[in-house]
Amino acid sequence: MTFSVRIAVRGYELDAQGHVNSAVYHQYGDHARWECLRAAGISIDDLLTSGIGPVTLENTIRYHRELRGGDEVDVTCAFEWGEGRTFLVRQEFRRADGVLAAEMTGVGGLMDLQARRLLGDPRSRWRALARAPEILGL
Amino acid sequence: MTFSVRIAVRGYELDAQGHVNSAVYHQYGDHARWECLRAAGISIDDLLTSGIGPVTLENTIRYHRELRGGDEVDVTCAFEWGEGRTFLVRQEFRRADGVLAAEMTGVGGLMDLQARRLLGDPRSRWRALARAPEILGL
Amino acid sequence: MTFSVRIAVRGYELDAQGHVNSAVYHQYGDHARWECLRAAGISIDDLLTSGIGPVTLENTIRYHRELRGGDEVDVTCAFEWGEGRTFLVRQEFRRADGVLAAEMTGVGGLMDLQARRLLGDPRSRWRALARAPEILGL
Amino acid sequence: MTFSVRIAVRGYELDAQGHVNSAVYHQYGDHARWECLRAAGISIDDLLTSGIGPVTLENTIRYHRELRGGDEVDVTCAFEWGEGRTFLVRQEFRRADGVLAAEMTGVGGLMDLQARRLLGDPRSRWRALARAPEILGL
Repeated sequence: MTFSVRIAVRGYELDAQGHVNSAVYHQYGDHARWECLRAAGISIDDLLTSGIGPVTLENTIRYHRELRGGDEVDVTCAFEWGEGRTFLVRQEFRRADGVLAAEMTGVGGLMDLQARRLLGDPRSRWRALARAPEILGL
Repeated sequence: MTFSVRIAVRGYELDAQGHVNSAVYHQYGDHARWECLRAAGISIDDLLTSGIGPVTLENTIRYHRELRGGDEVDVTCAFEWGEGRTFLVRQEFRRADGVLAAEMTGVGGLMDLQARRLLGDPRSRWRALARAPEILGL
Repeated sequence: MTFSVRIAVRGYELDAQGHVNSAVYHQYGDHARWECLRAAGISIDDLLTSGIGPVTLENTIRYHRELRGGDEVDVTCAFEWGEGRTFLVRQEFRRADGVLAAEMTGVGGLMDLQARRLLGDPRSRWRALARAPEILGL
Repeated sequence: MTFSVRIAVRGYELDAQGHVNSAVYHQYGDHARWECLRAAGISIDDLLTSGIGPVTLENTIRYHRELRGGDEVDVTCAFEWGEGRTFLVRQEFRRADGVLAAEMTGVGGLMDLQARRLLGDPRSRWRALARAPEILGL
């Protein structure tokens, strides 16, 4: 089952046009990715202590519907693993009434926070850190 | 009973010091005030359509404890009404484990969004708009 | 000459990993687009009054380098016009030392803020509103 | 002379009421405080490396005027030192046309980021770190 977190739109996230600002969707996506890691047993503090951190290399979003004040949205997070230093993250934003609000696809990696460079084999590193690796598709 | 909304800390709200940035507490407070209005039956769209909006004139916050990644916090919202053009809003930020994280006191008013000036008697205006005025202490 | 705005990284924009959070690049891109419109003579208030607003339908970002505390970044904004209801926006993020930090490509449109739907022929509408349409590539 | 940084309002900082959201003033204040430290020769990275960080214990803001799209605001930062573990920070927000938009007063301290507790004698610690302590009123 795909991981999902429900997010309530906050009033200050609406911009002058009366809808959730486009950049906020990226904050929601970021939050869903961290919550997915947390559900898998990996906290931000764990990662910082271990000196590694997830980074986004590329991201594409398609906006389908506006989000307005009072809306709630379910944001999914599904990791797809290949062989190299990167992985894919697919995310759907669906309003509580079932309407698809946005779709996001990201290419991510793991960074050595000291050397500020990408680490090889992120798959094994996540698996070693996670208590529930199946939530990460591992 | 005092209105309260539970807010989950989002990863991007942590700053370089690894805790929720001080300005984010004000976003949480703002969110709790809008949710309180919404619980009373007043939506952002209703307000914008009626051409009035709540504004903050003064705000004091006391920070007692840090909020960290993975924390949840309950933010209350209690309005106190006087006779003039302003009203008080008292808010408590309490971590899910019961620890008081912050206290906030604001002085607010209602603005005419066209004329950009404060309106008299906010109390009667809120009462006229609200379906559940008791949530606003009215 | 391509429009560009210099943006200084703000401390609260750094996340727990000590670099500018990925969503913040989208805020920078949004700011650069509004500044580009403003340079062309179109203010947010003008647009809101006329009941139309620019919306993003799709957006792709490629992150090349981190932005850290104290960095400044120049964000460009170049519109490309076709015949339909949408247009392209290309943006480059370049650190003050010349290093390319990110590239962004967006597909945008103009929304009727009352009907909440896309308007036809955004090109003519922008041209009618702009005092310096050449800044928008018109 | 009091330290000051000019900040241009960004479009996404406007909320549904068409003015800069109240919480954003706190982000501006935070930015001005970090810029003041940076002008004094103390970077975020320096602080993180040394394992200490500035925290706010209490903050009061008085809002005098709205900030709108296209506005620029000068935010000052003046430290006042006493004998204990805390210090005062006074900040003024003045629009480029000279109008006072807001005033902010904060009580701050220095935190040991490992132990997560306040350090004694912040004054001497800042003075030791700063290359231009006079900017911090030291």
